[in-house]
Amino acid sequence: MNSFGTIFRVSIFGESHGPWVGITIDGCPAGLNLEMADFTADLDRRKAGAAGTTPRKEEDEPVFASGVFNGKTTGAPLTILFANNNTRSADYDALKAVPRPGHADFVLFRKFAGHNDPRGGGHSSGRLTVALVAAGVVAKKLLEGVDISATLVEAGGSADISAAIEKAVALQDSIGGIVACRATGLPAGLGEPFFDSAESLISHAVFSIPAIKGIEFGSGFNAARMQGSEHNDVITNAEGATATNNAGGLNGGITNGNELYFRVAVKPASSTPREQVTWNNSSNSMEPFTVKGRHDLCIALRVPVVVEAVTAFVLADLLLRHKAMARA
Amino acid sequence: MNSFGTIFRVSIFGESHGPWVGITIDGCPAGLNLEMADFTADLDRRKAGAAGTTPRKEEDEPVFASGVFNGKTTGAPLTILFANNNTRSADYDALKAVPRPGHADFVLFRKFAGHNDPRGGGHSSGRLTVALVAAGVVAKKLLEGVDISATLVEAGGSADISAAIEKAVALQDSIGGIVACRATGLPAGLGEPFFDSAESLISHAVFSIPAIKGIEFGSGFNAARMQGSEHNDVITNAEGATATNNAGGLNGGITNGNELYFRVAVKPASSTPREQVTWNNSSNSMEPFTVKGRHDLCIALRVPVVVEAVTAFVLADLLLRHKAMARA
Amino acid sequence: MNSFGTIFRVSIFGESHGPWVGITIDGCPAGLNLEMADFTADLDRRKAGAAGTTPRKEEDEPVFASGVFNGKTTGAPLTILFANNNTRSADYDALKAVPRPGHADFVLFRKFAGHNDPRGGGHSSGRLTVALVAAGVVAKKLLEGVDISATLVEAGGSADISAAIEKAVALQDSIGGIVACRATGLPAGLGEPFFDSAESLISHAVFSIPAIKGIEFGSGFNAARMQGSEHNDVITNAEGATATNNAGGLNGGITNGNELYFRVAVKPASSTPREQVTWNNSSNSMEPFTVKGRHDLCIALRVPVVVEAVTAFVLADLLLRHKAMARA
Amino acid sequence: MNSFGTIFRVSIFGESHGPWVGITIDGCPAGLNLEMADFTADLDRRKAGAAGTTPRKEEDEPVFASGVFNGKTTGAPLTILFANNNTRSADYDALKAVPRPGHADFVLFRKFAGHNDPRGGGHSSGRLTVALVAAGVVAKKLLEGVDISATLVEAGGSADISAAIEKAVALQDSIGGIVACRATGLPAGLGEPFFDSAESLISHAVFSIPAIKGIEFGSGFNAARMQGSEHNDVITNAEGATATNNAGGLNGGITNGNELYFRVAVKPASSTPREQVTWNNSSNSMEPFTVKGRHDLCIALRVPVVVEAVTAFVLADLLLRHKAMARA
Repeated sequence: MNSFGTIFRVSIFGESHGPWVGITIDGCPAGLNLEMADFTADLDRRKAGAAGTTPRKEEDEPVFASGVFNGKTTGAPLTILFANNNTRSADYDALKAVPRPGHADFVLFRKFAGHNDPRGGGHSSGRLTVALVAAGVVAKKLLEGVDISATLVEAGGSADISAAIEKAVALQDSIGGIVACRATGLPAGLGEPFFDSAESLISHAVFSIPAIKGIEFGSGFNAARMQGSEHNDVITNAEGATATNNAGGLNGGITNGNELYFRVAVKPASSTPREQVTWNNSSNSMEPFTVKGRHDLCIALRVPVVVEAVTAFVLADLLLRHKAMARA
Repeated sequence: MNSFGTIFRVSIFGESHGPWVGITIDGCPAGLNLEMADFTADLDRRKAGAAGTTPRKEEDEPVFASGVFNGKTTGAPLTILFANNNTRSADYDALKAVPRPGHADFVLFRKFAGHNDPRGGGHSSGRLTVALVAAGVVAKKLLEGVDISATLVEAGGSADISAAIEKAVALQDSIGGIVACRATGLPAGLGEPFFDSAESLISHAVFSIPAIKGIEFGSGFNAARMQGSEHNDVITNAEGATATNNAGGLNGGITNGNELYFRVAVKPASSTPREQVTWNNSSNSMEPFTVKGRHDLCIALRVPVVVEAVTAFVLADLLLRHKAMARA
Repeated sequence: MNSFGTIFRVSIFGESHGPWVGITIDGCPAGLNLEMADFTADLDRRKAGAAGTTPRKEEDEPVFASGVFNGKTTGAPLTILFANNNTRSADYDALKAVPRPGHADFVLFRKFAGHNDPRGGGHSSGRLTVALVAAGVVAKKLLEGVDISATLVEAGGSADISAAIEKAVALQDSIGGIVACRATGLPAGLGEPFFDSAESLISHAVFSIPAIKGIEFGSGFNAARMQGSEHNDVITNAEGATATNNAGGLNGGITNGNELYFRVAVKPASSTPREQVTWNNSSNSMEPFTVKGRHDLCIALRVPVVVEAVTAFVLADLLLRHKAMARA
Repeated sequence: MNSFGTIFRVSIFGESHGPWVGITIDGCPAGLNLEMADFTADLDRRKAGAAGTTPRKEEDEPVFASGVFNGKTTGAPLTILFANNNTRSADYDALKAVPRPGHADFVLFRKFAGHNDPRGGGHSSGRLTVALVAAGVVAKKLLEGVDISATLVEAGGSADISAAIEKAVALQDSIGGIVACRATGLPAGLGEPFFDSAESLISHAVFSIPAIKGIEFGSGFNAARMQGSEHNDVITNAEGATATNNAGGLNGGITNGNELYFRVAVKPASSTPREQVTWNNSSNSMEPFTVKGRHDLCIALRVPVVVEAVTAFVLADLLLRHKAMARA
């Protein structure tokens, strides 16, 4: 399904080399100020160009197809389009002959009986994250007083991220990283267990971002090695403030008013300049293979703003659901 | 929301000390053989009684309220009830005075303005996992040729799980653990990105289980430390078999026909016998506090069958969605 | 799908002769007073016993399986069960041989490959409306200041309903009727077009009631014969009051603050005492056939309270959705 | 909500005078042939220009934003855009002063606190039906062997539609009409009661079309005046063929293999050239009022193709859901 959310509901569409990618937000309240300039900062954070990212120029100009009038949201579905400029043709039949290791070429071909758009990853491309970021910009407007901040805290196994990227450039091999996300200013009570715990919804959204392999909240995998007396966050006042934050700001799947904290593992991009050996359907044998084109060596650099965006639309949805349930 | 799934859709209800907990499966195909004996093995795996678990006797007898006739599913909603025998009264007002550290007491009280059923954790209780296990039994019936197996691979930081539990008993403190889950026999093509990647749906379901703090697929958090040439799983034949399984059987959020593999972090139970110091709303100060009652020291022992169950109903749903899309 | 609603969401289950029928309400706000006595009046209105209805005694005692504690809703799913007492066996194989005209026997057998529970109509039985009525009682609690009232305004083509029923008894043939439903006290603004117009949701819910053949809002089918200058309801004050109500209280699918008004056509029960001639699969020919058992001659008598109930849960859901969108 | 459907799911967006209106189809199987020419016939049927419709020229050129590659659907979301050419400015503040009788001006202003796009009806405009028709064209491709045909059978109360329109032109007043829709070639078994009966879903979709006031299936409102022995459709062979079709091809909310038949009431357009008297917020009194611009005198002429379209996407969704449930 290409939609997500209960009230604040996003629907994504587009392929990497098709005419447009876009996103529709259904359930966006009317009257939010919204102009193109609101998108610049987050779209820039996602852009290629830094060391370790591709030198491609992507013009990411949001087009409001619907839902905005006189600089405000109308309450009708808000659709934001991004034109794709990248329409160069290429020999994508090659992908059928040699499905790239670590890519979705093989599974997409199987799933869609060969009808998927193979150009640039099609609908599975990282290109679509531009639309997620745009939805995140709108969602953040609903989260007054909430600050969401995701940063890359580790790349290629090192906290010295610049050094890690230099090394990747030297080795000409892609690297992964870890993104930490924090949200402050959240009220206690967001989350709709049993199934829509805040962790359930955040992880659902985060795993829709390409290249994510893991997520952990608060103490995460370390929790498995702790004792209960160590792990429990002692409450220190009537508002539920805690002395530690092993819980990551969540108890029983519901925000507790402390900082929401989680970490996300990003794998190295499958498109590495290094030569690989893989199956070739034409020769029916293993053969050397090199990915063509210019690709990010450290896609993790571009992930934080996307993690922020999906976190924002999960929280915006939970906030609206919470409002619906409040007693007069 | 207490429902999950698109076609094979489960809806859970019940509180720990209320009259019944139960689950309704909507979208279960007609004609599956189903009898009470089918549930015994998985329900027994979830039961208390082993070292490190509570000595409570829970009678987990499934009652078919609807959807079964002459030993087969009818195609109508299948509702399975479990009676709660545990209806002893207790001083739950104490929880308002002293919200237990690491528990959901505080957030539930806030979220529901004090109206939640506080007895035994209410709707947030681990008791509800009995209903998940029951739904898992039905889901597994739809997954012919698929084998799902979850096991506890680490407890209290050690792979020697018996030793870890002895130590927890000696220390009288709860411990966590790590559950690994594998599914074999899956066809390539299951998963519905953009938002309903297999990882998105599995993590969504897994984080609905109480006490889960993290999930990682394939190489997981280690992927963040690997290079692309290392991480990519080389394809070795036309059916998409891979030499390694860093992907955990998933590319682009879609099963690739190799083994599905993920790991889950379980925190130590919040209810530890150890004395803690926490906020007391009556005295408006920090005070010593001890959780009453008998509780599992290693709840992780009971988690594997629940992880299997939720994985089964995610996969059953994806399989039915896949069938709907297949061309004649 | 056996669930309906976005926030206030009902899920129905049960078969006519199975152990239980029931309904789960997910998204019911916490803190509503709820006790068994609240259900008596509406359940009695639905009961059999009056002239033209069956003399069966149905004990409709609601059982709160979950979601109620200390006489109030807890915010967790609210499940209400009704035990079925009617478990007499019967020769339901006969239905496969002679599918009853006007019944769902044939289509259910086809749809579920013969696995549906055929006893008393199974999941398609009017028996399930007891669960709808129960959900309606809860929904009405959310609609403070709103009065929903459905009445039978025509039976067997006559506004003199007693006379019509006497005639049906004399002829020993079932008759249909028309139910009119009015709701006053609704705020302007309820309805979520494009697809979730109030008419869309109300008609969706109403057509889930067995035996409904038509619905019209305001002037309804007469509107097709009117001119625009006649049909338009002139607005007479700043609050949107209108001089006439051809719109039925709805413009553009949204309540306008005037009385919501619609009418529903109920067909005569398929189970008529009259002998019919129909296909017999055993003899492969048309043969005379008589429905066995005692059945309502005018099921329309029992429909108004069910129409009220489904209207109530549509409006409760729309009200909660409206609250979610309101700006602070 | 602006989405509809479970598997074949449409999401609509756009305002009458915004840059684009469009529709996204999620859950469209891969490999359907699709080109612009496929849309011409149905889009032309919807167009203005005939007597009784507006002389406006609307260029309805579908733009495939995503989901089509090499003339086939890709399995990814299929988004179709239509540019709006009508961007002339107008004095829409007047609508706040004098909400037009029979229009949604008043309720939209209330619902969206004045932020809705008022130009040409905004998101509530009949303009959006161009997107419904486009989705219908795609849905029809999934319905091989099924023929859906909707026609205007009555206008202004008369079966002589040309005469009715001449009269409307002479009177300069808008008129309504009745659309009959038939679908043949449907298999028995489509429909997902309890809540998703075929009637529930069709009526839900039909009432999303502007100006619809009523719907009736088979004998419809006449059923309320019939006796059971008259109304029951006698089955005449083992395939479930019936001698009459009072059921409209549906029993228990499920298709029975006979012709699906329903009728829809279309009200006269609220925009009539006739002078009206209505509330004026500026003068705080009732005042004469005339709608400006050129408008259709008989919008019902343009409704049949829209009714076909929404029926097609309901049936396509039901067919895919049915496939999912079929046993191997």
